[in-house]
Amino acid sequence: MADDSLFEFLHMEIVSHVYKEQESRGDNDKERGTCVSLLECMGFRVGQGLIERFTKDSPGFKDELDVMKFLCKDFWTNIFRKQIDNLRTNHQGTYVLQDNRFALITQLSSGQQYLEDAPKYLAFSCGLLRGALSNLGLESVVTAEVSLMPACKFQVVIQKA
Amino acid sequence: MADDSLFEFLHMEIVSHVYKEQESRGDNDKERGTCVSLLECMGFRVGQGLIERFTKDSPGFKDELDVMKFLCKDFWTNIFRKQIDNLRTNHQGTYVLQDNRFALITQLSSGQQYLEDAPKYLAFSCGLLRGALSNLGLESVVTAEVSLMPACKFQVVIQKA
Repeated sequence: MADDSLFEFLHMEIVSHVYKEQESRGDNDKERGTCVSLLECMGFRVGQGLIERFTKDSPGFKDELDVMKFLCKDFWTNIFRKQIDNLRTNHQGTYVLQDNRFALITQLSSGQQYLEDAPKYLAFSCGLLRGALSNLGLESVVTAEVSLMPACKFQVVIQKA
Repeated sequence: MADDSLFEFLHMEIVSHVYKEQESRGDNDKERGTCVSLLECMGFRVGQGLIERFTKDSPGFKDELDVMKFLCKDFWTNIFRKQIDNLRTNHQGTYVLQDNRFALITQLSSGQQYLEDAPKYLAFSCGLLRGALSNLGLESVVTAEVSLMPACKFQVVIQKA
């Protein structure tokens, strides 16, 4: 299944539903954090499920960097139909993945007021990455920021045991 | 975008989220109706969005039956990667669309207890159909039932003005 826009529309619906609930509870900034974490958790579980399918026939990974490269290429392409444009690392467990045209925010306008809205459209995808990594044995913290719409940077910090 | 399973996983997350909320409110059967209608509304909006894209370059439709055939073939294939297997009509505005292997319930087991769970996995797709029809100028009521897992029947009743 199938069409590009299906995932985009469905994602929009989820984000809007989660935030509408929050509003209907008359909530404040603290609760806004709950929305982000709820979306992130959904992404996490979807990421776990997807990576299992995507790596079913793959031979395993050499090292951490090898895993990250797989996420940037195969994983990202399977979900967003394009690769991550740039991967950087400090070789100490921190990785920055840049997508110059991130599908889930291309629909937003680039005005300042929309830029402030952008984080809620990133939480699910942070979860996707964290869930995928977790299933490959790497616990991580994933955050994201919009640099210049629709470019987007995901920062992954691997948690050493 | 892209992978088959992405939509399935995301759909599962939405259903489970909506029902979890209901539980957390300690709700009863009446509220269960709310969940179904919430999922149906999400599907409605996604269906509206999708049909706009799918019909962008199409020449328009001869009549109601022509619209239904389009939904059974192109619309369904774009979303579920297969056509509706059987379309029947009484030629008075009622249509029955049968999908012999409906993607969103193939993951469920076919035991009786799961069969009871099936309706919540159909609501979103009822909305998809109703939304698509609405954008094509046809108001309708769409219901669904699982006959024998994973076969599924959608009944569309067009509302005459």
